[in-house]
Order: sequence, then structure tokens, then C-alpha cells
Amino acid sequence: MSGNQKLWGGRFAESTSALVEKFSESVSFDARLYRQDIAGSKAHARMLGKVGVLAADDVERIVGGLDAILAEIEAGRFEWSEKLEDVHMNIEARLTERIGDAGKRLHTGRSRNDQVATDLRLYVRDVIDGLLPLIDRVADGLLDLAEREADSVMPGFTHLQIAQPVTFGHHMLAWREQMLRDRSRLVDCRRRMNLLPLGAAALAGTVYPIDRHDVAAQLGFDGVTENSLDTVSDRDFAIEFCSAASLILVHLSRWSEELILWSTPMFGFVNLPDRFCTGSSIMPQKKNPDVPELVRGKTGRVIGNLNALLVLMKGQPLAYNRDNQEDKPPLFDTVDTVSACLAVYADMIPAIEVRRDNCRAAAARGFSTATDLADYLVNRGLPFRDAHHVVGSTVAYAQQKGCDIAQLSLDELRKFSPMIDTDVYAKITLEGSLAARNHYGATSPAQVRAAIARARATRTP
Amino acid sequence: MSGNQKLWGGRFAESTSALVEKFSESVSFDARLYRQDIAGSKAHARMLGKVGVLAADDVERIVGGLDAILAEIEAGRFEWSEKLEDVHMNIEARLTERIGDAGKRLHTGRSRNDQVATDLRLYVRDVIDGLLPLIDRVADGLLDLAEREADSVMPGFTHLQIAQPVTFGHHMLAWREQMLRDRSRLVDCRRRMNLLPLGAAALAGTVYPIDRHDVAAQLGFDGVTENSLDTVSDRDFAIEFCSAASLILVHLSRWSEELILWSTPMFGFVNLPDRFCTGSSIMPQKKNPDVPELVRGKTGRVIGNLNALLVLMKGQPLAYNRDNQEDKPPLFDTVDTVSACLAVYADMIPAIEVRRDNCRAAAARGFSTATDLADYLVNRGLPFRDAHHVVGSTVAYAQQKGCDIAQLSLDELRKFSPMIDTDVYAKITLEGSLAARNHYGATSPAQVRAAIARARATRTP
Amino acid sequence: MSGNQKLWGGRFAESTSALVEKFSESVSFDARLYRQDIAGSKAHARMLGKVGVLAADDVERIVGGLDAILAEIEAGRFEWSEKLEDVHMNIEARLTERIGDAGKRLHTGRSRNDQVATDLRLYVRDVIDGLLPLIDRVADGLLDLAEREADSVMPGFTHLQIAQPVTFGHHMLAWREQMLRDRSRLVDCRRRMNLLPLGAAALAGTVYPIDRHDVAAQLGFDGVTENSLDTVSDRDFAIEFCSAASLILVHLSRWSEELILWSTPMFGFVNLPDRFCTGSSIMPQKKNPDVPELVRGKTGRVIGNLNALLVLMKGQPLAYNRDNQEDKPPLFDTVDTVSACLAVYADMIPAIEVRRDNCRAAAARGFSTATDLADYLVNRGLPFRDAHHVVGSTVAYAQQKGCDIAQLSLDELRKFSPMIDTDVYAKITLEGSLAARNHYGATSPAQVRAAIARARATRTP
Amino acid sequence: MSGNQKLWGGRFAESTSALVEKFSESVSFDARLYRQDIAGSKAHARMLGKVGVLAADDVERIVGGLDAILAEIEAGRFEWSEKLEDVHMNIEARLTERIGDAGKRLHTGRSRNDQVATDLRLYVRDVIDGLLPLIDRVADGLLDLAEREADSVMPGFTHLQIAQPVTFGHHMLAWREQMLRDRSRLVDCRRRMNLLPLGAAALAGTVYPIDRHDVAAQLGFDGVTENSLDTVSDRDFAIEFCSAASLILVHLSRWSEELILWSTPMFGFVNLPDRFCTGSSIMPQKKNPDVPELVRGKTGRVIGNLNALLVLMKGQPLAYNRDNQEDKPPLFDTVDTVSACLAVYADMIPAIEVRRDNCRAAAARGFSTATDLADYLVNRGLPFRDAHHVVGSTVAYAQQKGCDIAQLSLDELRKFSPMIDTDVYAKITLEGSLAARNHYGATSPAQVRAAIARARATRTP
Repeated sequence: MSGNQKLWGGRFAESTSALVEKFSESVSFDARLYRQDIAGSKAHARMLGKVGVLAADDVERIVGGLDAILAEIEAGRFEWSEKLEDVHMNIEARLTERIGDAGKRLHTGRSRNDQVATDLRLYVRDVIDGLLPLIDRVADGLLDLAEREADSVMPGFTHLQIAQPVTFGHHMLAWREQMLRDRSRLVDCRRRMNLLPLGAAALAGTVYPIDRHDVAAQLGFDGVTENSLDTVSDRDFAIEFCSAASLILVHLSRWSEELILWSTPMFGFVNLPDRFCTGSSIMPQKKNPDVPELVRGKTGRVIGNLNALLVLMKGQPLAYNRDNQEDKPPLFDTVDTVSACLAVYADMIPAIEVRRDNCRAAAARGFSTATDLADYLVNRGLPFRDAHHVVGSTVAYAQQKGCDIAQLSLDELRKFSPMIDTDVYAKITLEGSLAARNHYGATSPAQVRAAIARARATRTP
Repeated sequence: MSGNQKLWGGRFAESTSALVEKFSESVSFDARLYRQDIAGSKAHARMLGKVGVLAADDVERIVGGLDAILAEIEAGRFEWSEKLEDVHMNIEARLTERIGDAGKRLHTGRSRNDQVATDLRLYVRDVIDGLLPLIDRVADGLLDLAEREADSVMPGFTHLQIAQPVTFGHHMLAWREQMLRDRSRLVDCRRRMNLLPLGAAALAGTVYPIDRHDVAAQLGFDGVTENSLDTVSDRDFAIEFCSAASLILVHLSRWSEELILWSTPMFGFVNLPDRFCTGSSIMPQKKNPDVPELVRGKTGRVIGNLNALLVLMKGQPLAYNRDNQEDKPPLFDTVDTVSACLAVYADMIPAIEVRRDNCRAAAARGFSTATDLADYLVNRGLPFRDAHHVVGSTVAYAQQKGCDIAQLSLDELRKFSPMIDTDVYAKITLEGSLAARNHYGATSPAQVRAAIARARATRTP
Repeated sequence: MSGNQKLWGGRFAESTSALVEKFSESVSFDARLYRQDIAGSKAHARMLGKVGVLAADDVERIVGGLDAILAEIEAGRFEWSEKLEDVHMNIEARLTERIGDAGKRLHTGRSRNDQVATDLRLYVRDVIDGLLPLIDRVADGLLDLAEREADSVMPGFTHLQIAQPVTFGHHMLAWREQMLRDRSRLVDCRRRMNLLPLGAAALAGTVYPIDRHDVAAQLGFDGVTENSLDTVSDRDFAIEFCSAASLILVHLSRWSEELILWSTPMFGFVNLPDRFCTGSSIMPQKKNPDVPELVRGKTGRVIGNLNALLVLMKGQPLAYNRDNQEDKPPLFDTVDTVSACLAVYADMIPAIEVRRDNCRAAAARGFSTATDLADYLVNRGLPFRDAHHVVGSTVAYAQQKGCDIAQLSLDELRKFSPMIDTDVYAKITLEGSLAARNHYGATSPAQVRAAIARARATRTP
Repeated sequence: MSGNQKLWGGRFAESTSALVEKFSESVSFDARLYRQDIAGSKAHARMLGKVGVLAADDVERIVGGLDAILAEIEAGRFEWSEKLEDVHMNIEARLTERIGDAGKRLHTGRSRNDQVATDLRLYVRDVIDGLLPLIDRVADGLLDLAEREADSVMPGFTHLQIAQPVTFGHHMLAWREQMLRDRSRLVDCRRRMNLLPLGAAALAGTVYPIDRHDVAAQLGFDGVTENSLDTVSDRDFAIEFCSAASLILVHLSRWSEELILWSTPMFGFVNLPDRFCTGSSIMPQKKNPDVPELVRGKTGRVIGNLNALLVLMKGQPLAYNRDNQEDKPPLFDTVDTVSACLAVYADMIPAIEVRRDNCRAAAARGFSTATDLADYLVNRGLPFRDAHHVVGSTVAYAQQKGCDIAQLSLDELRKFSPMIDTDVYAKITLEGSLAARNHYGATSPAQVRAAIARARATRTP
């Protein structure tokens, strides 16, 4: 046993070089999986006991030992060692240190390949279970804000040009829809991945009479994976999770872009309380929307992580390759980022102060009710395309004159179309425009309130 | 109406520059959406008729005109014009040309923003409906091949080192599992996206008394989208589709990596028929596995496309921005690539010729049954970790001697552990090792046949 | 010779399947390389003549034949055939068709592997040579615009909050610096790649007494590549080009973001002439900044292409693999996109109309000269950090009062610091603030003019 | 001064929320920049002294204080505080704690915006200066290995099919070419970025009579940046560095792919010493090439980081936005990864043991000299295309017979072409084939030695 003291070192003639040891260790980041690793080991040991591979007292010792180690770790008293490579070997070595030979029997019928696959699935499942309530907090905050601002007029933009008036509440409900889709993707991801890998062993299964369904039941899995080669080489679930996380961040980044715009004095649509902002080291007047800027910035990182995982898996032959150790840093960074961004948004959304006067004043600019004039003409029988052209010319005229179309006299308006009558003015006010968009999904205050009511009715408690 | 002759040109004082026209046109690629665009327009017109916005004969003319245009396009007689920007304007202009004023009424109560969102959802839905049978062909081909090779021994690899014997059939079933997850992701994506966008209009809904649920029913949608601002700015479905497609390609790329390895004379595990290979312009002996190489190469493109879409959406404020025109080239390229790769794999899988002798000979190398020796010792009571070390030393000895462990004499073996007896030899043959891995998901021929039977039983017809 | 009629088909027993033929052809996109392919072939043939491998009349026939084919292609009379796979085989087959046996001798001492490497290097070199003048047009346009607006005050933003006044000219020169770095990266890329690949043959060199330096000189290369294995497998130059192109697009995307902001009525800093904008199919008043939006949107595509190429190359063993065929679509798409975006920006920049009144009015908001007040106090002896705090409180007071700090009375100001005197007012006007930033690289009109003068002096003609 | 105790908190009415403080701090990662930050501050202070903005004794105190802080940090005695946000504020606050008011004067005439830009450029410059010698070690190791194996025959592969014999030395020189290009890209990147940002201040320059060229000279910059707005918003240098790093990793990943292939018993071309390998937790016989696998795996991460940075910058308006704080994690991760991978390769390359017998045996398979037979026929006057076809048929015959073409009798050979004579056999041995490829860049041992000699001659000491 000279040469190499590693747990796997029997056939090795020399020790791992110090540089390689440092280069290849993973415990500095995979220690994070300790809870899942211990849960998996306990379930594995109990099953080995049930099927007669381990003696009952060995099982007892193992389970007790693992519980003690869990307590050590959570108390910060566990000494992680890079020499022991990873979370699995660290815990196993400590177990044997504590309970002797029984510890050496724990790894019977499994391999680190199926062990890490189990740990990772349990971890991603736990992460999703933690994200769902966060998403709900964000979505609920948006619902409340939408209710508060169901009547607040603001300009709706397309191409960042003023398009048509909308309500602030409607805009918040648009954000909420994005979150609901994100939620649903996480739920699908969780369902698809919730199968037990243990039993795949190194790649081919094991010679012991294991009961995989028992382990699955112990660990809350819905079933077991179908194929051992696939099982140890599959990281689909991590990629699918990172895809879903990327979309969450893309959504938060879009909201951030809007909050940054709305916070600049050029817009002045919202005020973010001081506690969400920071100042400048040089310019004493500055109050910066740091939170949305950082969220926007972090989006690149999460997209980069997804990219890294796809690249990682792309050319690997079956079954396990060491490349896969590199799945963890991008995954963990994604988990931390998406959690932090959702948490800070969950806090910030209820605190958004809408500057209704500025919003309304902006909505009155940019001929935002021009479409309503065209629709008015269509109602009088003009084909839409012709009405569009008539109003285009009217707008050009009003712009040159420096006023809104609602400020043109009836005589002026009739120069563009004799169909126009005094009843037009009611249609081309902000309120008139808003109220008229009164169907499922549209922006009228009545529809916004209806949407809120539907949301509250279907909201799972 | 001088200045700008575009359908939207009323307020414009000068024409679009020729360079800008060329730069901003999309018809050169979005013409591909004509079928969906026409279907959406017909449903929209019929609904407008039902709610009284369009007269019955206008509806009839519009529907008839659109059917005629569809026929023109499919016959290759339609003249696409870049001046008309996109598929929508091309078809609408031609419609008015054919049927006069009624054509100008079609765009009542909608916008290109909700129109293109509808076209794209219909398109992606059609694409998914076309991919599912292709995936089934691939998966079924793998099932047949797995059955044919359920007993064929090959080395299972980890780290590309020979690990343990597996069966070729088991390996094919591993590939199949990947496809099944891919299938399931596409099904989820389809379900989540199958809601009607029309009615969102430009961004705020419309003033006409539209019936969105009627249009949804006509077009086979499960319902309508909830929020008009979200609807025109949402491309989640395209990104989710491209995520699923990226995983499909990652899987095919991994298979390709393996087929390339197995085709090199250094492995010699399979033969790909000549019709799937090409030669060299200079080296007369060459027969190259071009198909898997190209599939592996195309993976980067599909990952790049997903990346492009995420970047595209990342910083956009609501609602629609012209950036979104750029969603189509990456999406279409992904669709074409994933379709072509699945099609060529569907053809190639049944044609894979397994060179069983080479596979078996390779499995006999590399001490592939060393784990079985360790497990033997565990059965005799040695803790697994100790057994691992004993076998490690045995392997080192055999390697130096230049033989397999199964070729060592009992005396030699017993030098490493006195627990070893003659019954060991049955355990450390290839067949012994394979047969012993006999639980759910493992590689024994019996389990492979059981897995095939389960697969056939649950296979939707 | 039945079985397979391809030029490489001697050892093949069956034809390529139609699906595979379609799947693996590249002529539909690599036909674009015809000019480089012909130039390379002519140089190769001439060299083979010089060293005695080809007879003089064969060389003559080949060169003449290739010239004729070039003319055919440019006249649109060449019939590309997917059966002939790629640009190389199409041209070679046509050559033999035209000139007989001499055509079959052309491929002596080379392979498609070094041929395509040569074509691609020539192509990327030509592309760079075409982009540099475009970049110069953009940079020169910025210089002219900077000169025109050297005195125009606008708010400088950080965090999109108003920070300090700057000049519009200074801002344009910032854009120009980005272009100059882009230019310099392209020049470096061109220099690094300008070495001849031909002679590497399939991967190992050739048995013919070729003179690579002669071919290099004929084709304008600075030298020959050093190693045949590296040569046929190297695509660094394409990746480096796409990296440089990605940065160009990132820069143009940032400009676009600013132009979109500046064009919204909320800012109103610039007007883009109608010929660079388009309208809405539904909202008659809309005038949208489509060009910058599209440029911003195309950025994702170019980043995705770079990504695709890195992924493509990442796991390939030496030497050539068919994966590499997939280098062309992302490269070509990048070339087209970066060219089109630069061209449209080169046209648009001189046409940007600055709305100076709006810019100036905005600069007067947001306490943009608060730093100047702090610097004033530092000049009076207060440590900067203390001055920063004093001004922070002053700003909070002015904000509550609803006025600018320059509108506070001396008494009010002195409540925050008794050091303040009447001379402060000259420092905290927009012009005072601007003029005071008067060192190399800073924003004062004098420095902007100095920078313009330096730029004109060093501008290569 | 209630409300907010931050150094910038004068105008703030409430403290930053704890969550936001945690969310927005950067000191946990940017503390790594302390050395550059202190060097920059010292140079800045000295310059302020020279131009009369700071008193000489203040400068002395500042420089002394900063040196003391540097010592504290390097001794691990510095207490970093997240409340102080970043490396800059941590050091400045400690300085003021140590030296009083003079510390508060340090930030005169600069901002964190130009400060962090300076720190980052100094940092990337230092990183490049550290990477170049590492690259040289790798390249020199390859040169030595190439010399050792200049005559060792191995199969050259294309499409992973055996193509033509090459020498192992030639292959190592191919790797070296990749490194040399990488080196040259880093040198270009360093040259382009080596300009001083300080003086740009927040974005517009400063009112103090600063001497930027003096600071540049103190810090070893070649000059100063041209435009203050560009300066604080530019991260091109970080992206360019990450592009170069991505290519380094792509190259190392390709080498890794080859080492993994060569280490599998199916190839058996090399042996990696035990100290670079690890074993399996379950399979006692395993010896895995972990180092190349991990390097291959880390490539995805570096590509993802480049991607993240491009995405980060893509849509930002000028000048500084808080998003940019997110430039550091991907940059630092790239630096650590590329450094570690180069270091471990620098150690591993000299230790690669070539198994010459296996290499040679493999080269003798796969008809690797078929091209030589074709070239032989060309020499006899057959056009290359016809020769290619003749040899293709010969190979098909030999394959069926189960022997190499060199093992066919002259009679057999002449059935395919009567031009063949006994002298053919000398051409189609491995040594004959190798020796014949004897021109600049080709694989003959003579050329390999010539290439090594050229490399040694031009190698910078």
C-alpha cells in the first residue's frame, strides 16, 4: 500500500502530485452537497440492511455516524480536506474514523458516479423547492402593486416610442405572467428529474441484490432511473434547471431595464426608496438604481453558466467522465444568483413608488391616442388601411403645429376626413382610449381588475 | 401622401433609404411563416364577421382571397417583395390587390405585433408536431437495435478507460432514455405555449368587441394569453424550444462522439454503411464517418442560436421592440438543424453494424471485471474499502505480468487474499460479470430484455 | 468503379444516400469562396509548373480554364451541383469537363484540407480589407459630428442618472475610440493569419517537391505556416475574427441603446431622419428607430456565432474533422452582419440631428454640477470626503425645495458651509463646469477640439 | 448626517437595506485587486503633490499609510468589511483611520469609476505578464518532447480515421504552434490596453490641474486614454483577454481530447504517470486521465465567461453602469482557470511517456500509405484523379483480403495498374512515406528537426 494512500490507490505506484491534487479537488465547492450526500448514504445503508448485505448493527452504526457528522458540519467543526478530494470521500473517511470497519462497508454496491448523481438531483430538487415560494412572493407583490395602480395611466411603449396609454397595473401584470411561466418551467423540471440514480453504481449496476425502489421511497423520489449508463452520465436536469434560471434572469433583467429607465429623471415614473440605492464616491447628488443594474448585469453570468454546461456535456462519450466535475461551479453560481436576485426583487417590488403625475403627463405626449382616431374612422366605415393614412397625415400636421391631435379643432380635423364629428374628442382622451380596450387581456382598468380577480381566485395558497 | 408609400407611411416626409430597406426587411426569411400567417388571418376575419365588425361578404372575400394567395405561394407563383418588408405586409398587399377594399379591412383590431406572435406560436407548434414522430423513429430504432444486441458484450467506459463489461443493447437503451427526456421537454414546451396571442394588438388590446376565445378555438389553441403587454413582448416559447433543441443536439453530439470512436480502426466496434460515409479527395483508402462528425459540429450552432436568443431578449423594455425581428434566423436555423440531424439519425441507427468480435475482445482487456473480484471479497466478509485495495494490488501485479486477473492462478490470487477460492473464476468472466448485474436498470442481458419489454408496453402507438 | 461515382469513390461499394448527400453538402454556402478557391488553384498550378510537377501546357490550360470558370460564375452561368459536395469539387469537376486530363492533375500535391484552409484565410483577409474602410467611414463621420457639436451641452450619465455636463462632441469621440480599438484588433488579426496553408496537404505534407514560398508570394501571404498538422486543423483566425466582430457589434449595440434612448420623446436628444425609421402597421403616429434596434438585436446573433465556433473546435482531435465544415455558416453570417451594420451606421451618423435645446435643458436637471460645488470646497481647503458630505446635504435640501443648487441663495448655501462665497456661482453653471474639465481626455470644448485636431493629424489618409 | 453612514451618504434619508448591502457588495471578490489599487492610489497622490493639489506632507502620509495597509493585507491582518462595499472604500476608510484628514484628500480629482478601470488594467497586465512565462514553459516542453520523438512513427488521423503516417514530434510541434499564436494574442492585448484611465474621474474629467502622463509613467503605462467617457465605460481589454484565454483553453481542450484518446487501451499511444491520474472509488483497476478530462471540462467555463462578459456589455449606454461590477467574477474565474490549466500542462508535458511500439503498430493499419501509392502512379504519368480511383479499388481489394496494400504481390498490384513496378514497395512503407514528405512544414523527421532548429534559434531567452 505504499505509493498512494488514497482510498482508490491500491494499484498506483506513486502519489498524486501536489499540483494535480490541488487542480483536481472538488471539496472546496462540492462540500455544499453534504446534506444531500448524508441523506443519500443513510438511505443506501438502510436498504443494504433490509436486503441483507449489511448487518443490522452496521447499519445502525453508519446511520448514527452520519448523523453525528451532519451535526459536526452544521456546527462548523468538520475539517474538510482537499487531499480527500470531494465531499463523498471526506464524509466516508470521517465515518470510518468514527465507527471503524462498518464505515468501510458503506460504499458497497454503489460508486461515486451514482452517488454524485443522487446528491445533485436531491440538491437541485431542494433548490427548486426553495425558489418556488420566492417566485410566489415576487408574483404576489406584483399583484398587490397592480391592484394599487390599476387606474394609473402611463404611456405604453413600443420601440421605446410612446405607443398607446396603458395602466401601470396592467404593466405589473405583464411582469407577473413572465414569473408564472418561470414557475411552471421549474415545476416541470422538478417532475422530470425526480427519479433515483443510486444503483447505477459505476455505470453498469451492481452485483448486490439492491432494492432501488426502497431507496427512492426513502428519499422522496417518484421512481428510479431506467438505465445505468444513462444515469451516471446524465446532467440534463442541471441544464434544464439552468435554462429555466436563464429565463428568470432574462425576465428580471427586462424589468431592471425598465426600472432603470423609469428612475432616470428623463422619465421619472418611479422612485426606488433610498434603501435600494447607493451613491457616488465623487458626485454628491447621485442616487443610483444599483439593484436593477446589478440584476441586469448578473444575467450575463447566468447565461454564461448555461452555455458552460452545454459546452461541457457536448462531446462526452458515455459513461462518466471527469469533465463532469465542472458541472458544479456553473450550477452553484446560477443557484446563488437566481436566488439572490429573486430575493431582492421580492423585497423591492412592494416598495416601488409610482410617480403618477409624471406617468400621466408622459402618456399625454407622443400622440398616444392616434390609433383611437383611426379606429373611430373605421367605425364610420373607412377601411383600416385608409384610416391609418388619414391619421398619419393628421399627426404630421399636429406635430408641425406643436400640439396633440386632441387639441386640433373640429375644422382642422375635418380637413383630413369629413367623417370626423364632435364625438371624436371623447374617444381620443387618455381615459377614453383606456376604457375602450375592454376585452380579455386588454389594458382597461376594468380588465385589469378582472385579471387581478382571476389571479387571486387561482392563486394556490 | 407623398414622401413614403409604405402602408404605414402617412406621417413620413421621406422614403426609407434603399440601404435601410434592405437592412430592415425580413421577408427573405419570414416568408417561411406564410401558412401560419394565412391561417391566423382567416380565423381573425371570421371572428370579426361573427362579432359584427366585418360584413359577411367582406369575410367571404377575405377568406377566399387568402386561400387563393396560399395556392399562389405553394405553386411558387407569389412574388415576394422586400419593399413590403415582411410576410404580413406582402400577403396583405396582395390581398388588397386581389379583392380591393375588403383587404384593407383585414387588419382591423390587430397589429403586426400580435400577428407575428401568433404566427410564431403556430409555427413552433407545427415544428414540434413534426419533430415528435421523428424522435419516435429514432427511439424505436434504438429499441430494435438494443433487442438485436441484447447479449453483445462490449466494454463500458468511464474516463474512456475500460471500466466494466456492458451489453451493446444496454448502451443503446441509454441513448434512448436521452431521447425520451427530449420528447417530454418538447411536449411541455408545446403545452405551455399553446395560448392565442391575437387580440393584444399593438400592446394594449383593441377597441373592437373581439372574441379571442373564438379565434383560439379556430386555431387549436387551448386558451388565450392573459396580458396584452406580455403577449407582444414574449418570446419565452422560442427560447424554451431552442433550449430543448440544444439538449437534443447535445445528446446526438454525444452519440456522434461515440460512433466516431467506434468507427476508428483503433476501436472497430461498428461499421457504418458506405452510404453514410464519404471519402477523401486525396487519400484513396479513407472512409469517413461524416454524418456523426457533422452532427457533432452542428451542435455548436444550435447552442449558439440559443445563446443568441437569450442575449436578444435580455435587456429589452416592454413591449415590442424591433430587435425581436432577429428572433427568427436563430430559431429557423435551429429548427432546420435539429430536424435534419434527427432525420439522418433515424435513417442511420437501423443501419449500424456491430462488430461483435471486436467489442467482445475489447471488453476482455483492461481488467474490466476487477470490481467483480472486489465484490467477491465483500461477499466473503471483507469491508468494501479493504477489498478495493486488495484488488488494486492484484491488478498491479497482473499488469506487470502482462495478463488479466482471470488468468492468474489461484495461488497467485491467494497471495493477495486467502479468502479467494476456485469459485472466483466464474465471477470474473465477462458473462459472469454481466449476468450478476441483475437489478432494475442494470446491464445484464435479462435486465436489458426486461427494459425492452417495458418500453414496448408503454410505447404510444 | 460501380457503386460510387464521387471523385473519391474508388473504394466505396454503394452510393451516398440521398439524405446524406443533402445533409453533408456545403456548396450551398461555400460557393461564396469561389474567388479565393480559383485564385488558390491558379497559384498552386503555376507553382507545380515551376517545380516541374506539371507540364507548362497543362498549367496554361488549367489557369485558362479556371479564368473561364470564374467568368462563368460571375456571369451567373455556372451550375452548382450539390452532388459535387462543395465549391472545390464543383470547380474541379467543371475544369476537367472543360480541359480534360489536365484538370485531373490540378489536385496533385494538395488536399481539400489545405485547400479550404487557404480559401478561408484569403476570404477572411479580403473581408478585413473591406471592413477597414467602412470602419474609417464610421470613425470619420463621428469626427465630423463631434466637431459640429463640440460646444453642445448634454447631460453625462452614470447609472442612467444625470451625473455631470458633457459635450455632445465629447460623447461622439468616445464612440470613435471604440471603433479605433476595433480597427486595431482587425489589423492584428489580419497580420497573424496572413500565412499560407497550402502544402499541408491532407495533414502531413506531400511527396512532391513543392515550393510553398512561391505560392505564398503569389497570393500575397507574408509567409507559410510552420506545421502541416496544425495548418489543416487551425481555425484560430476565424475565431479571432469573430471575437473582433463581436466587440464591434457590442459597441454598435451600445450606440444603438443610446440612440434609442435619445430618440424617445422622454429624452428627445436627437432626431433620426425619416429615411432611417419605419412606422407601425396599426399606430399612425409612430416613427420607430428601427436601425439601431435591429443593430442591437443582431448583436446576439454575432455573439452566438462566436460561441458556436468556440464550441465547434473545443473537443476536436487533430487533424481535420468534418465538424469543421460547420465553421462557415457562423463565420459568413458574422461577416454579413458586421458589414451591414457598419454600412448602415456609416450612412446614419452624419444624418443624426442633435436637438441642442433638449440636451441643454436636460443637463440643467439632476444637480449635474454638484461635484463642482464639492471641488470648490476642496479648493477652499476642505478634505474631499467632507466636501462630498456637505454637498450631499445641500442637494437633499434643494431637492426638497424643488430647485437646483445654483438657484439657492448664498445664505442658504452658507448654512451648509461657511466657506462658500459669491464666486461659487460661476463654478456651478453648466458652462463653468464644462470649461473647468480642461485636461487631456476631458470634456471641455477646448479639449474636445484638441482631441479632434490630434485625430485629424494622425488619421491615415 | 443621519440616515446613511456611507462615504457617499450625504443626501440619503435611510440606510441601505441589509439585503441590498449584501447583494451589492463586491469586496468579497474585488479585494483581489488590492495591490493594483494601492499602486494606483500612490501614483495618484504623488501626482497631486507635484501639481500642487496636495501638500507634500499629505502625500507623504498617504503613501506611507498605503504602504502600511499593503503590509497589513499581505500579512492577513486587514479586516475587510462588506459594509464598505468594495476594495477601494475599504482601503480608503482604513487610510483615513490611520492618517486622518489626509486620507480624506486622496480621492480628490478621481472617482471609483476611473479608479477601478485603472486597477483592472493593471491587474490584467500583471496577469498577462504572469501567463507568458507559463506559456513559454509549455511551448518549451513541447519542443523538447518533439525532439525526443522526432523519429517516432504514429498514425496521423483525419476524421479519426487513419490517414497517413506522421511523427510524434511533428504532432507536438503542431500543439506548439497553437501556443505561439496564443502568446502573440496576449502580447497584442497587453499592448492595446496599456494606457492609463485615471483622470477620467466619474466620466467627464476633473477640475484639478492633474498630470495624467506623470501618473502613466509612474505606473508603467505607455500613454493615457483619449476620452473620459470611453475610459470609464470600456471593458474591451477584459473581453479581449477572455477571448484570448478561450482560445488557449480550446487548444488545451483539443490536446486533452487527444491525450484521453491516446491513454485509452484502445489506442495505448501514451502513458501518463500515476501522479497525474486518479483512481475509482469502486473499480480497483482504474487509472483515469483526470487532468486532461478536467482541462477539457473547464473549457466550457471559460467560454461561458467570455460569453457572460459580452452579454454584460452589450446594451449599456455610456458611461459607467453598476452592471460593470459583474465583470469581475467571470474575469477572475477565467484568470484562475487558464493559469491552473497552463501550470498543470507545463508539468505534465515533459512527463508524457510515448509507447512507441503501439504508435508504430497503429500506423501500419488502415492503409495509411495509400496516398503514397497514388502519388507513385502520378509520378508515372497518371492524372491524380485517376490514380486516386485506382488506389481506391486496390484498397477495397486488400481490405477484403485482410491485408495491407504493401502485402499484395506485384501481380496483384498490377491488376489495378500496369504502371506499378517493384520500386513501389519502398514508397509505401511507413518510413518511405514519412521521409518523402520533405518540405517546409511537412512531417519527415528531417523537417521536424529543421523546425526544431528554427524554433530554438528564434526562441526569446
